[in-house]
Amino acid sequence: MRIIVDAFGGDNAPLEILKGCEMAVKKFGVEILLTGSEEVIRRVAKDNNISLEHMEILDAPDVIGMEEHPNELRKSKKNCSLAVALRALDEGLGDGFVGAGSTGATLMGATTIVGRIKGVKRPALAPVMPKSEGVFMLIDCGANADCRAEMLAQFATMGSVYMEKVMGVKNPRIGLANVGTEDTKGDALRQETFPLLQQSGLNFVGNIEARDIPYDACDVVVCDGFTGNIILKLYEGVATALFGMIKGVMMSSLKTKIGAALIKKDMYTLKSKLDYNEYGGAPFIGVKKPVFKAHGSSMALTFCNAIGQAKTYIEADVVGAISAAMAGDSSEQ
Amino acid sequence: MRIIVDAFGGDNAPLEILKGCEMAVKKFGVEILLTGSEEVIRRVAKDNNISLEHMEILDAPDVIGMEEHPNELRKSKKNCSLAVALRALDEGLGDGFVGAGSTGATLMGATTIVGRIKGVKRPALAPVMPKSEGVFMLIDCGANADCRAEMLAQFATMGSVYMEKVMGVKNPRIGLANVGTEDTKGDALRQETFPLLQQSGLNFVGNIEARDIPYDACDVVVCDGFTGNIILKLYEGVATALFGMIKGVMMSSLKTKIGAALIKKDMYTLKSKLDYNEYGGAPFIGVKKPVFKAHGSSMALTFCNAIGQAKTYIEADVVGAISAAMAGDSSEQ
Repeated sequence: MRIIVDAFGGDNAPLEILKGCEMAVKKFGVEILLTGSEEVIRRVAKDNNISLEHMEILDAPDVIGMEEHPNELRKSKKNCSLAVALRALDEGLGDGFVGAGSTGATLMGATTIVGRIKGVKRPALAPVMPKSEGVFMLIDCGANADCRAEMLAQFATMGSVYMEKVMGVKNPRIGLANVGTEDTKGDALRQETFPLLQQSGLNFVGNIEARDIPYDACDVVVCDGFTGNIILKLYEGVATALFGMIKGVMMSSLKTKIGAALIKKDMYTLKSKLDYNEYGGAPFIGVKKPVFKAHGSSMALTFCNAIGQAKTYIEADVVGAISAAMAGDSSEQ
Repeated sequence: MRIIVDAFGGDNAPLEILKGCEMAVKKFGVEILLTGSEEVIRRVAKDNNISLEHMEILDAPDVIGMEEHPNELRKSKKNCSLAVALRALDEGLGDGFVGAGSTGATLMGATTIVGRIKGVKRPALAPVMPKSEGVFMLIDCGANADCRAEMLAQFATMGSVYMEKVMGVKNPRIGLANVGTEDTKGDALRQETFPLLQQSGLNFVGNIEARDIPYDACDVVVCDGFTGNIILKLYEGVATALFGMIKGVMMSSLKTKIGAALIKKDMYTLKSKLDYNEYGGAPFIGVKKPVFKAHGSSMALTFCNAIGQAKTYIEADVVGAISAAMAGDSSEQ
């Protein structure tokens, strides 16, 4: 299996990306096709004793920045490392793509260069996140700020396929993120989506209130990209703020410092269980080939984990399963 | 000062409501006008040794349930304790209202019986919530699921007045809850709202990402009621889930149990600081007279705190200040 990697995507590129690739080659036995300035890649690898074994390089000296408009990928930045990587994916030079660069530019490239699965209205960015027991998929979490009800219904189908194929969840429970559990709750978008999910043939368990998301309410939380991004980032923000405050409590007196020393190790385990960076990345579900977005601030381990997730995604043939589901969808209509 | 209280609103009515009123009479020196079945109120008070001193009762044997449609307040439940209370407020029998009953019915009654401040498009439910340092106001958190940009701009004005008048924050910082900090981020609603806030004359500090909300990003977080409700409940859910998991960690071995014993007290202090129930209630801002919604599951202390908040709201003449701000708004247009 060969993974195409944008060596210049993300805040810590190319060093941490290269380190992550080296780890992934060893850990997952994959081949890597790097895109980016060959000269810089070879120099950084040499300076940091990173082995480039099982890796090839596709030279692309240009880079698209996090602050640049995604449209530049089709204009002034046609030959940046990200565009070159996605064209390589489209041309079949690898089995999937992983990058930590701009979300907007990656989505733009995934949609325009690689293309959508037939029948998919919009690809969605869908991370798998920790909850009190196990994990859940949040779909969409930022690819589509404004959504229509049919898009949310498709997100549900794609999320269900993913949780079944990749995470091994049988008959995944689908929940609609909403402001109350009653059928009629929510804004116009939720009220239109609810009956579509009821008729979808999926295991729809109804509306899910935000307070129940961290518990085992469902396996797939369906929402528009605006709401999903709020959920994703607030999840992260509240947990981080709380751990910070707890640290403050623990350091407040000699007594609490002693107490802290005794539980520190177990607290770290919990913290890392809740850290969604540990989970590596999130797929752009609905794209014709596997495209994974790693966290922009990915360090080597996170990036390596994202490659591992991409590998599972490829092996499980999620793209094939979604194509089949979409074909079924349209034949029913 | 006289506060009108629906004795039959909420999960723990009337017992905890009556206890809360008794506490509030002592703590805040207010008079109370209770609405509800006089017979039941007197019996429950007697059975539980609750003093009804400084309280009067307006008999209203009927109750509107949490599951009933808010419209029933104007139809079959015209004479329920909530409707009677809001009519009493409208007629000037008290200075403000506090109730723990159905949010939808309270909003319906506040809008149709008491009425909006002139110029206010929609009243908003706006709780004050804890953050790492101090508090912030979340407006709207559930009164209006679907909003237009002008409504969000008004929420900003009303939130600013509240934080200045009631919480003593000078020149409150207004943030727009959004998916990124750049000016152009977000869905259509956010993109329309951003320039309105820039032109508002308020201390608008720009878009706020959800991960920054628990920190000291701003004093007023502006959003539509759907998003606000997701934020409110996820805030609560993540914090509760995390404390639950931490408790699990602490009870996992003898060593951690000893550690836990040493920090338990300080952890409880932190937990109660973060518990938004401690803050009592949230005003329906934009209504002509002070209407406070206490948490549906309010126990006596929470309800007492809600009465305290209502008292501050009345003393600060928030209604007068918002009326003035709205008059200024319309003269500018």
